[in-house]
Amino acid sequence: MTDHSYLPPPSLRERTARFVDRPAVQNFIIGVILLNAVILGLETSQTAMELAGPLIVLIDRICLFIFVVEIALKLFARGLDFFRRGWSVFDFVIVSISLIPAVQGLSVLRALRILRLLRVVSVAPSLRRVVEGLVNALPGMGSVFLLMGAIFYISSVMATKLFGAAFPEWFGTLARSGYSLFQIMTLESWSMGIVRPVMEVYTFAWLFFVPFIVVTTFAVVNLLVGLIVNSMQDAHQEESNERTDTYRDEVLTRLAELESLIRSQNDARKD
Amino acid sequence: MTDHSYLPPPSLRERTARFVDRPAVQNFIIGVILLNAVILGLETSQTAMELAGPLIVLIDRICLFIFVVEIALKLFARGLDFFRRGWSVFDFVIVSISLIPAVQGLSVLRALRILRLLRVVSVAPSLRRVVEGLVNALPGMGSVFLLMGAIFYISSVMATKLFGAAFPEWFGTLARSGYSLFQIMTLESWSMGIVRPVMEVYTFAWLFFVPFIVVTTFAVVNLLVGLIVNSMQDAHQEESNERTDTYRDEVLTRLAELESLIRSQNDARKD
Amino acid sequence: MTDHSYLPPPSLRERTARFVDRPAVQNFIIGVILLNAVILGLETSQTAMELAGPLIVLIDRICLFIFVVEIALKLFARGLDFFRRGWSVFDFVIVSISLIPAVQGLSVLRALRILRLLRVVSVAPSLRRVVEGLVNALPGMGSVFLLMGAIFYISSVMATKLFGAAFPEWFGTLARSGYSLFQIMTLESWSMGIVRPVMEVYTFAWLFFVPFIVVTTFAVVNLLVGLIVNSMQDAHQEESNERTDTYRDEVLTRLAELESLIRSQNDARKD
Amino acid sequence: MTDHSYLPPPSLRERTARFVDRPAVQNFIIGVILLNAVILGLETSQTAMELAGPLIVLIDRICLFIFVVEIALKLFARGLDFFRRGWSVFDFVIVSISLIPAVQGLSVLRALRILRLLRVVSVAPSLRRVVEGLVNALPGMGSVFLLMGAIFYISSVMATKLFGAAFPEWFGTLARSGYSLFQIMTLESWSMGIVRPVMEVYTFAWLFFVPFIVVTTFAVVNLLVGLIVNSMQDAHQEESNERTDTYRDEVLTRLAELESLIRSQNDARKD
Repeated sequence: MTDHSYLPPPSLRERTARFVDRPAVQNFIIGVILLNAVILGLETSQTAMELAGPLIVLIDRICLFIFVVEIALKLFARGLDFFRRGWSVFDFVIVSISLIPAVQGLSVLRALRILRLLRVVSVAPSLRRVVEGLVNALPGMGSVFLLMGAIFYISSVMATKLFGAAFPEWFGTLARSGYSLFQIMTLESWSMGIVRPVMEVYTFAWLFFVPFIVVTTFAVVNLLVGLIVNSMQDAHQEESNERTDTYRDEVLTRLAELESLIRSQNDARKD
Repeated sequence: MTDHSYLPPPSLRERTARFVDRPAVQNFIIGVILLNAVILGLETSQTAMELAGPLIVLIDRICLFIFVVEIALKLFARGLDFFRRGWSVFDFVIVSISLIPAVQGLSVLRALRILRLLRVVSVAPSLRRVVEGLVNALPGMGSVFLLMGAIFYISSVMATKLFGAAFPEWFGTLARSGYSLFQIMTLESWSMGIVRPVMEVYTFAWLFFVPFIVVTTFAVVNLLVGLIVNSMQDAHQEESNERTDTYRDEVLTRLAELESLIRSQNDARKD
Repeated sequence: MTDHSYLPPPSLRERTARFVDRPAVQNFIIGVILLNAVILGLETSQTAMELAGPLIVLIDRICLFIFVVEIALKLFARGLDFFRRGWSVFDFVIVSISLIPAVQGLSVLRALRILRLLRVVSVAPSLRRVVEGLVNALPGMGSVFLLMGAIFYISSVMATKLFGAAFPEWFGTLARSGYSLFQIMTLESWSMGIVRPVMEVYTFAWLFFVPFIVVTTFAVVNLLVGLIVNSMQDAHQEESNERTDTYRDEVLTRLAELESLIRSQNDARKD
Repeated sequence: MTDHSYLPPPSLRERTARFVDRPAVQNFIIGVILLNAVILGLETSQTAMELAGPLIVLIDRICLFIFVVEIALKLFARGLDFFRRGWSVFDFVIVSISLIPAVQGLSVLRALRILRLLRVVSVAPSLRRVVEGLVNALPGMGSVFLLMGAIFYISSVMATKLFGAAFPEWFGTLARSGYSLFQIMTLESWSMGIVRPVMEVYTFAWLFFVPFIVVTTFAVVNLLVGLIVNSMQDAHQEESNERTDTYRDEVLTRLAELESLIRSQNDARKD
């Protein structure tokens, strides 16, 4: 589509942009990600680390280096436009996290480095489309999420006030109540693990928990229903409209032909 | 839309109505609700109460006072019409509950005061729409709920008669059986927690519980299916009808034009 | 619709049929069922039985007597046709069960008497429709059920052979394996309760259980999808076809009018 | 449909092909499978083995022999074409597994012999269709599966690094982490069984597990939604297109008739 061929020789920036967008380069990056995935997997195995620890660490460093070079090239090629694409920012952030020096004791930061494998999502188009689909579904569910948030907050405050004194481990603070209510919403051990023990102290605790389960489950179900209906709408509308439009054009064309035929007869008669 | 401007100066009632419906006033109320939410959250934290207990309680009282004034103004402005809107009644009830003096020992009443945060639903239009959607879906599911109720009642009576003697804690009374069956319906610890111990006494207990699980799960699934089909119907019908109607009008207009053209030719020839 | 009025006075059979079909009689039966429900509920309460035991038993007997009379009248009125309606047979069976004398020790039979409350389903039209909907959905799922049955049987035989020796309580016999696999399919304590302990003896047990969970869950999900698609099809087809048909008739009528107009012009010219 | 009758007498291969495809032979094979299912079920019962052990083993051998003969005949009749049909290969593989001599101690191989009952799926057309439906649904979900795989692998590596040292039994190796995360995804004992104990050591463990649950559950839900939308699309498209096509043909035919009528009038006038 572009007509670069009629222009002066491309600048270094343009050539860099073309280089990083080449399928061969993209596939090479996918290869590096998969290699890195294997290496990071091996890092969890004691046997592998004992046998080839330094090699594994070296390859990991090289993979990271390649990622840094790729991001740097893209940054150079696209300038600030780089930060306008969500996926570029995503790559930038997860590669940056890997560069934070792993201070001793902060094993969490070292674990976060593994997130760099998520780059496979931003690089593989099919995975990217799935994630975009999931993310695009979110705004339509915004109100339901807000409502769920309100229900959770109110229920957490109530649970803390009602059961916090007797069950500090489950409902001692707002955060603990929130976590316990999340567990109850997933229906995990809600009765045998939590509500039955609570009912031994507060006989009517079920008056709080059973409605909570019913309401949140119903809201989740509605979220699901909304998701299905929206997806179906989109899919159906496109396909159906196309067909109906084709059909309408056909009929209207025939009608127009008919009209012009009648008019030509009319003209012929007048002559 | 209204033509109050041609009328005598509005009464105090009308001016009050206009005041409480102003966007600025609505937003102020939302702000008070959110502030109240934070305050009630802080009330659950011992540290916060030690540091600023009296201030927190004071702000809570002020928030409640503002709610009472708002409801009173609305009541004055709308009179008995106030009670015809479901959401007004909702606001009235949950603010009234907060006014019940918290008798010592009745910590439940103090916990119920937190329900006042639910006002955020009645004030925020997007949340209101979600709740209205949920509530509107209920009548269509009335029969299934009734059937579930019947199944639960009959099963509770049976479970109490069959297993009540040996397992008084789970099936000792109708209420306990109902609660245990609700737990079993949510599939929480149904086998390891309840049915396996029961089977150690009554070998054939699974003949009661497994069909119960299958039937109630199937009914819940059907509820879900009905919900999806109804939502989709509504969404689809609207969109599809609009398109079909537009198309039909287009074709019928062309046909009418064609007819009048033929008629005019006819008339012309007759002349 | 019938023209009995022109016939000789109706026979006793006909008069009985008219009597049992009267709305007043139907409502009376619903009332008796609800009263019986309350009575059977009270029977589970020790306090109520101590206070009014003989009265409760008496009322229960009277309710049962009324049911027997109603069924007998219907049997007399309809003859063998009675057994052609599924719901009549349903009523007949559950009332018959209640009549089996409760031999001492057979508390199960006494518990089964409570099933008589299920008559509320056969008598209330809205509940009847829900149950008919559920039952009608079954044949379409026949193949999936058959497949699930085959998977369960094969898995039970395998589980018994593989794990029966070491875990006789869970997989000792075909029936125990079937029950345990049903529990695993509902995901209840499948890992912590069953598979982790089994894996301590047979390290690779997850190779059996994880695929089992994935396959059965997937089959259940497909059952659900099939159910939704079928319901939607039915609902959509009806509504959509009606509209399309109306529209087609409109367009075709206009086209026919146009044709006759042109023909009449032709005839007029020929004259 | 075939015109073999005009050809020289069929070869032995053709006659074999006709023989194995005969309904009577197919039904006989179904019968043998069902008999074999009963026999393999009896093999799990000690009482049955004590009473009629040798007979049961003999019948099992005969069933297996019949399967081998059937497969051999099919192989002879179809030659290499045999391996082009997925279901034939399926039959070939599961019958071959049964022929592997059961080395002592390898009870797993003997348990795998039971898989031969899965032949009922390849032989019964209705079951075959269900399985084909399930399998055909898989490719459309390929990207989501790939994404789930990536999430699982990355989460397993992270969980092993973060919690492996303190909880070797749950997160000691990549495989253990994978299994534990699968359990957590199914929501089985995720909180009481795993996350709460982990949080006692790593307070912020919920920051890893709660997002994991939300993301994987959301992905599973999307899988389900995709499945429903696809099935519905297929079902709807077929039915709807047929109707629309019929309708379009009708209208277009009428329009063509109208045009030829006008043309004929024109010609008539010219004469």
